[in-house]
Amino acid sequence: MSQKSDLSSIKALAFDVFGTVVDWRTSIIRECALLGKSKGISLAWDEFADAWRRGYAPAMNKVRDGKLPWMNIDEIHRMILDDLLIEFNIKGLSETEKKDLNRVWHRLKPWPDAIRGLRRLRRRFIVATLSNGNVSLLVNMAKKAGLPWDCILSSELAKHYKPDKEVYQTAAHLLGLKPGQVMMVAAHKDDLYAAGKVGFKTAFVIRPLEFGPEGKPDLTVETSFDLSASDFIDLADKLNA
Amino acid sequence: MSQKSDLSSIKALAFDVFGTVVDWRTSIIRECALLGKSKGISLAWDEFADAWRRGYAPAMNKVRDGKLPWMNIDEIHRMILDDLLIEFNIKGLSETEKKDLNRVWHRLKPWPDAIRGLRRLRRRFIVATLSNGNVSLLVNMAKKAGLPWDCILSSELAKHYKPDKEVYQTAAHLLGLKPGQVMMVAAHKDDLYAAGKVGFKTAFVIRPLEFGPEGKPDLTVETSFDLSASDFIDLADKLNA
Repeated sequence: MSQKSDLSSIKALAFDVFGTVVDWRTSIIRECALLGKSKGISLAWDEFADAWRRGYAPAMNKVRDGKLPWMNIDEIHRMILDDLLIEFNIKGLSETEKKDLNRVWHRLKPWPDAIRGLRRLRRRFIVATLSNGNVSLLVNMAKKAGLPWDCILSSELAKHYKPDKEVYQTAAHLLGLKPGQVMMVAAHKDDLYAAGKVGFKTAFVIRPLEFGPEGKPDLTVETSFDLSASDFIDLADKLNA
Repeated sequence: MSQKSDLSSIKALAFDVFGTVVDWRTSIIRECALLGKSKGISLAWDEFADAWRRGYAPAMNKVRDGKLPWMNIDEIHRMILDDLLIEFNIKGLSETEKKDLNRVWHRLKPWPDAIRGLRRLRRRFIVATLSNGNVSLLVNMAKKAGLPWDCILSSELAKHYKPDKEVYQTAAHLLGLKPGQVMMVAAHKDDLYAAGKVGFKTAFVIRPLEFGPEGKPDLTVETSFDLSASDFIDLADKLNA
């Protein structure tokens, strides 16, 4: 895929996580199916996973608009989960089981290329998360999956959710870098547009299966991004890492 | 050394960095001596290093008391450095050289046991910094030295300096843990007293050479700490890591 603009100033790569680094959908479906099996609950778990994820943007918007107080993603996921348990008529889960189910987001599995790509990229750049996931979620996920981050950065540190500009500005400030020295890496265009607006470099990584085999993510390359890549190995190649 | 109280609840270790993980004094003296040699400046660099470090607590106190606005440690180090260059009559440094000299704090070297101990401790616990150093300083230091942190936590995230309670509380909150699930590890008692007051477990690691061969750090073990260790290997032994 294409490459443009001078990338020699880049010191750090900031990664979107859900969908870009980890395959949330397969991970959620798998854990829910295992729980369902053990509890005797039969359900279309793919629909459940998609509904859980779909609830996330509207909930964040309510926080953004001040209709909800600041809540981290663990709290948002739990709020959505409680609604979904009713909607999908899932009964018989104890509070401990609900808490553990909610923490499935701490246990998401990386895409097959993610760790190998990050290891290469880390030799040349600071590699940091820049996720709407809260710090503890990202730390636990990294530890479980072996994701080799130099630094865990999160919307939680700005008390703003992406794509609010404060998230990107806070990240650059904490890294001691100018926005142009940081490249946002994401599979989602709204994240990259917002990062680009505050001066970040941008890398679009396509994740054709993020929303499952039937999903229709926007994979069209845009020339406004500094770089486009088919996965993290391709990204490492293109950044000479 | 001694061990008391139930340590089975501990999920994360939060490390003081300057003096506890890295040998700031030897690192500063070495880099300054190299710079002095290249610039033809002859000086008692140990006195210079000690003076630089001595300036740090009073400057933080001014921030704490509101006599100075919030400044991160890079800014505090630079303010002290500018005074010391006059006091020690050091001339002929360009702005670029001053900036680079100030960043010597990003390049401090770990104590000989630190990395090996952290690698062991990391298998069992989340290992995080909890330093008055700013995030970028800690990230750059970790990358250069190979310190295997799971998470970079800093006073900067609380906009309070240790030993203010907000620093410890913010750290526990970001890790998603109760204070009693976090153990503060430090060579400095004031840090441990403050952490203990908000409910952290405490581990005292002695660093007899922190202030040089002539330094007189307080190495007496206190029974109020949950654990005392001679270095990070001993700490790993005592925590069964």
